[in-house]
Amino acid sequence: MSLTDVIDAVRGAVDADPKNAAASFTVTSEHVSGTATEVDVVARKHEFTVDEPAALGGGDAGANPVELALAALGSCQVITYRFWAAKLGVRVDSIKVTTRGELDLHGFFGIEPGARAGFVDVRVDVELTGPEPAERYQELRRVADEHCPVLDLFRNPTPTTTVLTSG
Amino acid sequence: MSLTDVIDAVRGAVDADPKNAAASFTVTSEHVSGTATEVDVVARKHEFTVDEPAALGGGDAGANPVELALAALGSCQVITYRFWAAKLGVRVDSIKVTTRGELDLHGFFGIEPGARAGFVDVRVDVELTGPEPAERYQELRRVADEHCPVLDLFRNPTPTTTVLTSG
Repeated sequence: MSLTDVIDAVRGAVDADPKNAAASFTVTSEHVSGTATEVDVVARKHEFTVDEPAALGGGDAGANPVELALAALGSCQVITYRFWAAKLGVRVDSIKVTTRGELDLHGFFGIEPGARAGFVDVRVDVELTGPEPAERYQELRRVADEHCPVLDLFRNPTPTTTVLTSG
Repeated sequence: MSLTDVIDAVRGAVDADPKNAAASFTVTSEHVSGTATEVDVVARKHEFTVDEPAALGGGDAGANPVELALAALGSCQVITYRFWAAKLGVRVDSIKVTTRGELDLHGFFGIEPGARAGFVDVRVDVELTGPEPAERYQELRRVADEHCPVLDLFRNPTPTTTVLTSG
């Protein structure tokens, strides 16, 4: 299916029953040793290892959690641009996104009470090639940013509940 | 280095110069074809493919961006629990975290103006084993949640700037 076919198919399914717009995603993360953690995208059988670099006490067996978050943002930008370019009929020949995030380790390590644990600043650089005028791509950016799920996650608070069971 | 050694080393470096607490992370995401996107954690040479499942127009070559975001959250919880358990002297034998997020596709596909593009609800289930009383683990949960960088990213707005260059 092309991306426009997917857009039409989802639109049709959601028009038939708005409940079809509800999509649920589940991932498990299990501690292995040190900071190494095995991730399993359960429904789709994708597995990979998350780990910290040596400077943060890890074995460097994979990207660390904040790098994964930046990868989620960058890849979501790429895919959202692709979908909306297809939907709007804007030709795009290539897209590369660089995501950079700044942490203040005062937060994670609890060195300074009240210091933010998460990113204090994030920058997304999108490099795009194609034959359309620059204004058309800036319009695409506005629409893509409005509909990008992970950009929304970064920019806005998401209701997130944590529950611990011990035994 | 053990995790407590890392905590001491970071603490020492930050005490010597608070600027040592600034950590920057960079990731590139490059479109391949369809929805397949190649991610590169530049500084650490970790590469992987992000893709959508067939139902969302992809080739299912890897986790999709929102699953990566949930993986970032789950693995960050695991590692933050490990660090803070070490710091507080709480014994933990195993940790498994299940993260689940709910999307409303009205947002991503722009079917309903104003519908949220990102997760409308996220649930984090932490299953932990160890010999300590349940209250001690609940106290660990409170401290871990307060210092978990990706939980902070989910729960609070992060200043995120997007810049597009076309040519």
